Formats: sequence, structure tokens, C-alpha cells
Amino acid sequence: MLVDLPTPAAPVSFAEDRARTAGRVLLSARTPESAAMPADLVRPWLAEQARRGEYRVTPVPFSLLRGWHFEEDGNLRHESGRFFSVEGLHVTADGLPPGGRRQPIIVQPEVGLLGIVAREIDGVLHFLMQAKMEPGNINSFQLSPTVQATRSNFTGVHRGRRIPFLDLFLERGRSRVLVDVLQSEQADWFLAKRNRNMIVEIDEDVETGEEFRWLTLGQLLRLLRLDNVVNMDSRSVLACLPTAGAGPRAADGPDDTGVLRSFHDPAAPSVHGMSEILSWLTGVRAVRELDQRRVPLREIEEDGWLFSGTEIGHRSGRRFRVIGADVAASNREVGSWTQPMIQPQVPGLMALLVKRIRGTLHALVQARVDVGHLNVAELAPTVHCRPADHTGPGREPFPPFLADVLTAPAERFRYDGVQSEEGGRFYHAENRYAVVEAPDDFPEELPPDYAWLTFAQLTELLAHGNYLNVELRTLVVCAHTLY
Amino acid sequence: MLVDLPTPAAPVSFAEDRARTAGRVLLSARTPESAAMPADLVRPWLAEQARRGEYRVTPVPFSLLRGWHFEEDGNLRHESGRFFSVEGLHVTADGLPPGGRRQPIIVQPEVGLLGIVAREIDGVLHFLMQAKMEPGNINSFQLSPTVQATRSNFTGVHRGRRIPFLDLFLERGRSRVLVDVLQSEQADWFLAKRNRNMIVEIDEDVETGEEFRWLTLGQLLRLLRLDNVVNMDSRSVLACLPTAGAGPRAADGPDDTGVLRSFHDPAAPSVHGMSEILSWLTGVRAVRELDQRRVPLREIEEDGWLFSGTEIGHRSGRRFRVIGADVAASNREVGSWTQPMIQPQVPGLMALLVKRIRGTLHALVQARVDVGHLNVAELAPTVHCRPADHTGPGREPFPPFLADVLTAPAERFRYDGVQSEEGGRFYHAENRYAVVEAPDDFPEELPPDYAWLTFAQLTELLAHGNYLNVELRTLVVCAHTLY
Repeated sequence: MLVDLPTPAAPVSFAEDRARTAGRVLLSARTPESAAMPADLVRPWLAEQARRGEYRVTPVPFSLLRGWHFEEDGNLRHESGRFFSVEGLHVTADGLPPGGRRQPIIVQPEVGLLGIVAREIDGVLHFLMQAKMEPGNINSFQLSPTVQATRSNFTGVHRGRRIPFLDLFLERGRSRVLVDVLQSEQADWFLAKRNRNMIVEIDEDVETGEEFRWLTLGQLLRLLRLDNVVNMDSRSVLACLPTAGAGPRAADGPDDTGVLRSFHDPAAPSVHGMSEILSWLTGVRAVRELDQRRVPLREIEEDGWLFSGTEIGHRSGRRFRVIGADVAASNREVGSWTQPMIQPQVPGLMALLVKRIRGTLHALVQARVDVGHLNVAELAPTVHCRPADHTGPGREPFPPFLADVLTAPAERFRYDGVQSEEGGRFYHAENRYAVVEAPDDFPEELPPDYAWLTFAQLTELLAHGNYLNVELRTLVVCAHTLY
Repeated sequence: MLVDLPTPAAPVSFAEDRARTAGRVLLSARTPESAAMPADLVRPWLAEQARRGEYRVTPVPFSLLRGWHFEEDGNLRHESGRFFSVEGLHVTADGLPPGGRRQPIIVQPEVGLLGIVAREIDGVLHFLMQAKMEPGNINSFQLSPTVQATRSNFTGVHRGRRIPFLDLFLERGRSRVLVDVLQSEQADWFLAKRNRNMIVEIDEDVETGEEFRWLTLGQLLRLLRLDNVVNMDSRSVLACLPTAGAGPRAADGPDDTGVLRSFHDPAAPSVHGMSEILSWLTGVRAVRELDQRRVPLREIEEDGWLFSGTEIGHRSGRRFRVIGADVAASNREVGSWTQPMIQPQVPGLMALLVKRIRGTLHALVQARVDVGHLNVAELAPTVHCRPADHTGPGREPFPPFLADVLTAPAERFRYDGVQSEEGGRFYHAENRYAVVEAPDDFPEELPPDYAWLTFAQLTELLAHGNYLNVELRTLVVCAHTLY
């Protein structure tokens, strides 16, 4: 293993190793402008890319999907047996009826790669971002990681073009690893799906095409203030950057809300120590029941799912639909293709309540059980729901803290934006993401599955997989905009 | 959450918190004798318990299992729908034939609790161990954790007696958590099974029955030198004790082999840093394929499994058998019961090659893909196999390093013992566990899925679940006997 990797000159502990990177991450976050790519030019460049990359995405009946078909058991698969399939999932869990519940689910056992190449320019870390079209995006082109590839992509099942920069991630020796961890994706739509989130650093410049640009973290944070510009994969990978122990730079300037301390000081006063936090999550995972079984897709009819030639949807009109899409694009590894997609019926609301406690900003997270989770529960935003599911006929009760977010005055929204979920599998899936300051009189007593964590605690957990769900990872990177 | 938990007076980092425990663990490991229970009396006490606890275990036809039956799909289940079931598992993975392979598997989505109560006696951590009968044990009574319970146990499905000390683990406030993590069990026989491994510390003495004794870690390590005394659950939990940063005590005395430094110095010279190690394992998990699908048990016939009234076994005579067992015991929550069990055909060999590198003892581990893994790959011993599978007609090729272990001279075996696997599910399942010194001329070049780690790196990984498999956890605790 790793024989081709340079061995560090002097041994350092894991924490020291991560703290060194954290210091450089903080400097990059505080660099809102760069000669490599002036911030003002990012949006015109993205618009230009969109003009050059022609494409169209058309919902089509399942019968027009090429290479995809419903098998005997009703599952929707590709003839190659690869990519992904749409199957039935039968889940038994606390809170569901005794017999459990069935729904469609995307099964994709292959782990994909979401990789960003990093490089110091003028002493500041820059990240090589790509303007990339994804069929599900509402605005088509967004900033994606340098490389965004399924295993099928790089083993050639796609028969597509060579993926630029892939070798920097797969063949070590020319790069150093800053981030490398498997993280989960939407657990309502995917069964135990994970992607490899990577950032590798190189020392020398590389030749890049017109669709790539080097940006500082500070520039990316400004773009995160805009709707639907930084794609989900980029947000997921950037969230995994270490922040704890960034060093004296973190003490620069005033920190009235305790956000700098929260991200960068691993010994900041906190409500809980890390041992307590891990023990709490272990307890939730041990006590809550989650039994998942893949079943023939047709079985879900018994739970109210309706099949037509153009969609599989729930008779309640809630939840989501499986549809077919025909995609033609010039700027993509393959010129045109068809595929099934998931389309949510309504947008979600992902909100993180934050509060200054003992001088450190804390985030209120929940240990959430979701049907597709690999390991029962993951930490999720304070509010993780589709608000429309809680209104109208047949509505479900309000989840905890939803009312607090919906009624919070505008000035308490420290971050508020609409961001897209993964455009390769989800069609027009948008969520509102918000970081909301809790009022001073916010109750100290919490429901049992909720806890206050600092951002350094969250980013330290991100060194490992399946602790933070993808929606919370987006909010972690959005919270970087608070300092 | 945790509102009843005492908040630490001063914030400490996770590493500091664990280092404090590590120092106390080291002191306990170096205390081979205790007034609480003289070491010489442990075996006579265990023998006395065995005399008092009458029981018999008889293999019986499946038709005599009470409450268990083969369902329409052939799966073997309990009428309550709880405990566990024996189902079919269809696995597609690299190295298997293109259509994958099917086998029986135990499905037990419930997480059990393996809990040890700890207490300082005369300033030294003692662990409250229980003499416990398990039906599969070859010698019936072994040292088990204070509490060993399935969720069914404590929610009353067993309709058994109240479990002593359970409340110390479930209702916090009277105890402090030293260890709390979900860890995997045998991935060849269980589908994604995990148990909650816990150690909680109390300040005041508690009343214990005759079947309980307080022992130091040093005493337990001496008992580990004996065959089949410390049960698998105890070994699993004790392995999770933190060791890194134990402090100046670790420097006491000579450390010719670098084993003390390996366990206790988190900045000891090592072949790889932790970031590299995590990145390597992430890579294996991302690149290797593992698609698991539960199928009706009857389907496994097509892969050579034969069903009779008394067993389900493979026609090759290799692998393992599913059998029925009738158990009658006085010393158990329930007086008598029947259940299915797994019986391996031959014992396994679990060997860890160790070598002093840069003054620190390193252990050679593999990133192993197994059919039942939750997360594709876990770290496993250097050699993890059944040697008999690699001899005789239809044998498989030798795995890497098996020949090195089988031909190593006796003086290179630093630890060598026979230990039982979990006696609640496995019938007479024994493995040989060995820690073997690699010769000086051991090749530096390793196969891609193998790496040298220090023991502190291994115990730091054990703060999180599913990094080390259960066989490697046994070897980690056995390696404590080396200093």
C-alpha cells in the first residue's frame, strides 16, 4: 500500500496534520479576491459556458429510455447491469406502521468520485472548479468539482471521453491528499449511496480547459450567497475541509457571535465533549430500529404508488416521482443519453438553528433516521423537511422547530439561499437552506434526538463517513459565510 | 439530549479526553494482581460457576425448534418476528463469478449491548466481569461483559428476568462513559451486524452476585493467555479502550520491541500518518465492488447448499452449517430454549504479523472485503482464513502471508491461543489467534490491500465503528499482553 506516497519528514498526530490544513483553509476563506480569477468574472464566465454548451432535457415516457427497461420483478435497470437501478425498498422502523412501508429507491452500489484539485497560488489555496451541466439542474450549469465521476465513468462502461485530472486522484505521487472520505447522499431517495469526497493538492500548475477556473474558498463562499451556483457535489466536498486548530489567524478581529471560535478552536467552550457526542449518536443508532429490504419495484403498489407510462408517483400527490428524461448535450462525456430521474413534488427546507453559548456559536443538529441510511442515523439539520407535507389535507404534524424557523424575523436569517440537489439523478430538486439565529429565550430543554454542537466538532466528524448527512454538509459550508 | 449528563468542568479536546482514560487503562494493564479478586482464584471461581449452572446443549432437527419455522420463502424465522433470522444473501463482488454467489446469512438488524461496568479500586480501574454460559461455547462458561443483551432482552420480548446493571448503561447520570461505539461482528455469517460496545465507570460500589467479579485489565490479559476463558464480547469491548497518549508511564522501563510506544505514543514514528491510512481505506471502499441482496433462503440451493431436516450445509463440505440447538440452562435469563446456530466446519487462523519499524512496533493489517460488511471493507488481521480451505481437493490458493505464519518458528509467536467466537449464535466456533514477529528480511513491498499500522493508530480508529473487524479487535487486545 501507498509505497509511492511520500512519507512525512517528521511524524505528526492526526490532529496536528489536520490543523495545518485548517490554517491554510482559513486563509483561503478570508481571501475574497484573486488575480487567478477576479470574482466579478465568475458569473459571466459561467453564462458563457452555458451559451457554448448546448443541451436540452425532455421528460419522456419510460418506453423511450434507451438501454433501460423494467425487468420481470418490475425493477428499472440498465441493460449493462451497471449505473444504477430503481427498485422497491421495504423498511421497518420505529414510527412506521407494524408491517413497514415500501417506496421506490435508487440503488447504486458503486461509489463515485467527487474530487477537487487544490493548489497554492500566491500562497493561498485555490480550488479548481468546473462549469458543468447536469440534466436535473434548473439552470443547467453550476460550479462542480474538478472531477465528478462514477466508477462506470472511469472503467469505461460509459464509453465516454477520458476524464481530465482523474489520474491526480487515482494515481498518487503527483498529489497530496487534503480530504478523502466516503460521504452519504440523500437517504430518502438513495439506498446507502456514498461518494468519495476528495481534495488533492498539487504543487505545479496544470493545463486546464475553458470550463475550469481556480477559485479561493473566499470566492466560493461569496458564490454560495447566490442561488444555484455552487452544486451539491462541490458543497459536499468543501464541507469536509478541516477547520479545527487553524491557529492564531482565527483570533484576528472581533468575533462577537463566536463563529470563528466555533469553526477553528477545537478546545472552545462547548456544550458537549466529543466523547459525549459520539456516545449520544451511538445510542440513537443502537436503540432505533431500521430494517431495510430490497423488494421488487411492483410491490410498492400496495403502499399507494401508481405506475403509468410516464411516471411512478404516490397517490397522495406527496413524496416524489420517478420519471424518464432524454438529455442531449454537447458539453458532456457522452453526447446524448436517456435515464430515469427522481423529481420531488415540492422543495424542502433545511434549516440550522444557531446560538452563541459560552462564547462559542453552536448549531442545533438532530440524529435523524432515514429510510436509506447505511447506519441507521446521521446528523441532520435542525429542520429537515418539506414544509408542504405539513399543510393541507392529509398533512403530517409539524416536526420540532419548523415553526421557529417559519416565524423567525428576517434579521435572524444569517444565511438564506436556494440550492440544487445532485443534478445527475434528481430533476429540478431544490431546497431552501437557512442558518437562523435562535432567540435568547430559546428553550434549554431539547427533544432527545437533538443536540448543540460547535462547527469544529462537526468538521472533525467529517473526517469520517456517515456522521453528517448531505443536507447538513451543505449547511456547514454555508455557515462558513458567517465569518 | 444528554441533559442529565454532567458537563465537564473545563473543555478538553477529544484527544485529551481519550488520553486521560488511556493513562488509567495503562495503569490497570500493569496491575496483574488485585485484592478485589486474587488472580489465582479466577479459574476455580469460573469452575464453581460452571458446576452451579447446569445446562445441556443438544443439536436437534429444525422441526424441534420451538417458535422457529421456515417461512414460505424458505427463511428461518422466529414467530415473534424478532431475535434474528437465517436468510439467503446474494453477493456480487470483485473476485466472485459474474452472477455473484449465494449463501445463508444471519440477519439481525437489532443492535445488541455489550457493556462492562468499570470502577476504580485502590486507584486502579477494575472491570466487572460475568461468568456466563453461552450455548455455543465449547466449555460453556467464559468471562463475559457485565451486560450482554439484545434489544429483545431489554424490551421484554424474551420475557426473561430483569438484567442486572442494564440501567447503568441506558440511563446515564450514575455513570461516566469510557467507551461507546457500534462495532461489527463476523461478516461471513452476519449481515451488517453490529453491537454497541460500552464501558461505563461508576464511583460507588454496587452489589454484585456470585457470578460477577471485579478484575484489572492486567488480570484479564493474563487470562487471555489461556484458551477459551475471555469471551469474544469481552475481547471486543476491551479492545476499544483508548491507549494513545497514556503519558509518561508508557516510558517506564525498557521497550526493546517498541510495543509500549506503539500502543501509547500517538506521535510515535510510524510508516503512515492517520490521514494516509484513512485515505487508503477510503480508496479500497470506493474501488471494490460489494452489492448485497437478501434473497429467499431456498435460492441458495442453486449455489450448492443442501437442505436436510437437521442442517443446511454446502455440498463441498467446506464453509459452515446451519443447525438447530436445544438448550436447557438454569443460569440464564430464560430457563430453556431452542434456536438455530451456525457451526463452522473447521477452525480459522487469525494471525497478526508485527515488526519493529523506526523503533515502533507495527502490525500488518489488510483492508478486507467480506460478504456481510456494512461498509465494503474493514481492517482485518494479516491472515484471516480457515487453513483447511487451502488444502486438499478443491482447495483455494493460499492467501498472502499464510505460509509465513505456518512456517514461522515457535519463538516468533509472541501470542498464540485458541479463542471462541460468540457462543450465542455460533456452535463450537474456535479460532487460533496469533501475534507473530516478522523476520528482519520480511519484504518491504506489500500487496495493495495491506499496510503497517501502530497499535495507537488501531485503537484511535476504534473510537469509530466499522474500521476494525471483530477478529482484529481480538488480536488488538491480545497484543496488550506483549508489554
